[in-house]
Amino acid sequence: MPFFIQKLAVLGVGLIGGSVALALKQAGAVGEVVGYGRSQANLDHAYSLGVIDHIATNLAVAVQGADAILLAVPVGQMAALMQAIAPHLGADTLVTDAGSTKQDVAALMAQHLPAHLANCVPAHPIAGAEASGASAARADLFVGKNVVLTPLSATSPAAVARVSALWQACGAKLSNMTAVEHDAVFAAVSHLPHLLAYALVDMLAQRDNAETLFKFAASGFRDFTRIAASSPEMWRDIALANRNALLAELAHYQTHLQHLQAALSAADGAALEAVFRRAQAARAPWLAA
Amino acid sequence: MPFFIQKLAVLGVGLIGGSVALALKQAGAVGEVVGYGRSQANLDHAYSLGVIDHIATNLAVAVQGADAILLAVPVGQMAALMQAIAPHLGADTLVTDAGSTKQDVAALMAQHLPAHLANCVPAHPIAGAEASGASAARADLFVGKNVVLTPLSATSPAAVARVSALWQACGAKLSNMTAVEHDAVFAAVSHLPHLLAYALVDMLAQRDNAETLFKFAASGFRDFTRIAASSPEMWRDIALANRNALLAELAHYQTHLQHLQAALSAADGAALEAVFRRAQAARAPWLAA
Repeated sequence: MPFFIQKLAVLGVGLIGGSVALALKQAGAVGEVVGYGRSQANLDHAYSLGVIDHIATNLAVAVQGADAILLAVPVGQMAALMQAIAPHLGADTLVTDAGSTKQDVAALMAQHLPAHLANCVPAHPIAGAEASGASAARADLFVGKNVVLTPLSATSPAAVARVSALWQACGAKLSNMTAVEHDAVFAAVSHLPHLLAYALVDMLAQRDNAETLFKFAASGFRDFTRIAASSPEMWRDIALANRNALLAELAHYQTHLQHLQAALSAADGAALEAVFRRAQAARAPWLAA
Repeated sequence: MPFFIQKLAVLGVGLIGGSVALALKQAGAVGEVVGYGRSQANLDHAYSLGVIDHIATNLAVAVQGADAILLAVPVGQMAALMQAIAPHLGADTLVTDAGSTKQDVAALMAQHLPAHLANCVPAHPIAGAEASGASAARADLFVGKNVVLTPLSATSPAAVARVSALWQACGAKLSNMTAVEHDAVFAAVSHLPHLLAYALVDMLAQRDNAETLFKFAASGFRDFTRIAASSPEMWRDIALANRNALLAELAHYQTHLQHLQAALSAADGAALEAVFRRAQAARAPWLAA
């Protein structure tokens, strides 16, 4: 039997939640999509665009009878949502999320949905998220993109299989990790770069000659700092949620910078070039892949 | 009288040198372009593409009778070129360059072209340079782009005017700065970001789980590290040439990271968000401009 969800509740109908709804609709894998969120204007927009079929005015209505619930809100809002939906979950209702950090989501599920853990499958779709809101949603957002599942020890294999099928219906490539491994990987390749980009822009913006600096900043600077355009609220939540792994990466990076600083102080061109060359060599095949 | 150069010698026919040649030709501002370089294959290619009109087999031939000479080679090769051309320069021959650092070029000119400083006009075109070689050259590379001139104290106003006209004929927007100011600005907005991007990629590439890390690195990482695809040799030279300014920026940045680290250690969400918000707010109008 092909994968099918009769009722999907999307809590947070933004880029991610809206794109899951559109993708499942396009795949013919969902009967109806109910949306719930903080912004009535965004929900109205989502409805008028056909991203969702119904707007739920409260969480009980949104969740009642749903086969699957997608928590697609910033990590900082998850606890309140879980508390609110807990009394209304059906015995077989799947709960998955799209948060950028996973140990915290797992902990929140253990705390707020203790009777429901067999059906909880934390997930992280790796898809660009500079644009936001339902109007940015696209049916093909996840096509060919990685989605990492971090099942809890209590999660049933059947729930993992169902949530895997959901994301596969969206066109995604699935991987499984522990939440600890996930958070370490993304601290390194995503959370740290965001911190570094924010730090650089903020540092320069505070200078007396900031206007001159930005005037002469070119495309390299633009791309390096693109992620500093991301939502400050969302990235505050991510940084706090993954604090330990991010602090570890920040410490590693500072050590690395100190080595570069030493090489530069000593005018050690060979050492500098070795770092630059290794970096260039590592990046090229990755980009080609 | 409109700006016109009878003979332009381009020493180093890469992306920058080749694009200047094409731009001046398109503007009808040059009679003939003679190219000189290390790679015969690249010169042959430049000739076949019409980027240059003649291939000079030695520097004396290249420079003889030239109205203007463009030094478009990595900073590390400039000294040898200046030494070699010095005996062949005409009294009115303009000498300009396209190097990314300017105090070092000024010093090299003072050392190797002491009799010719009135006609020396160091310049830095701010144009993307990931691609390289004559085949990457484009007539419109400099259209609307900034070019910074850093005249020497000995440079004549007439020479500044001629070199300004040369770059304006390429479509560029001209600014004048001292070499010290130039190097400080570009240490901040270009050289430091390059160092930071190289450092991050190199740090991750050395990990045991590098393959996993790169697998899950997404578009944010790709853009953040795009400048780590740049030429290691060129960036070694730039880092060394602008060592003092770059060391100062590296120290500032490390202090900034320590503040972020302290905020993160203290789980001070408000402090983190303030940094992220200032950065986002500073970047948005810049990008829109």
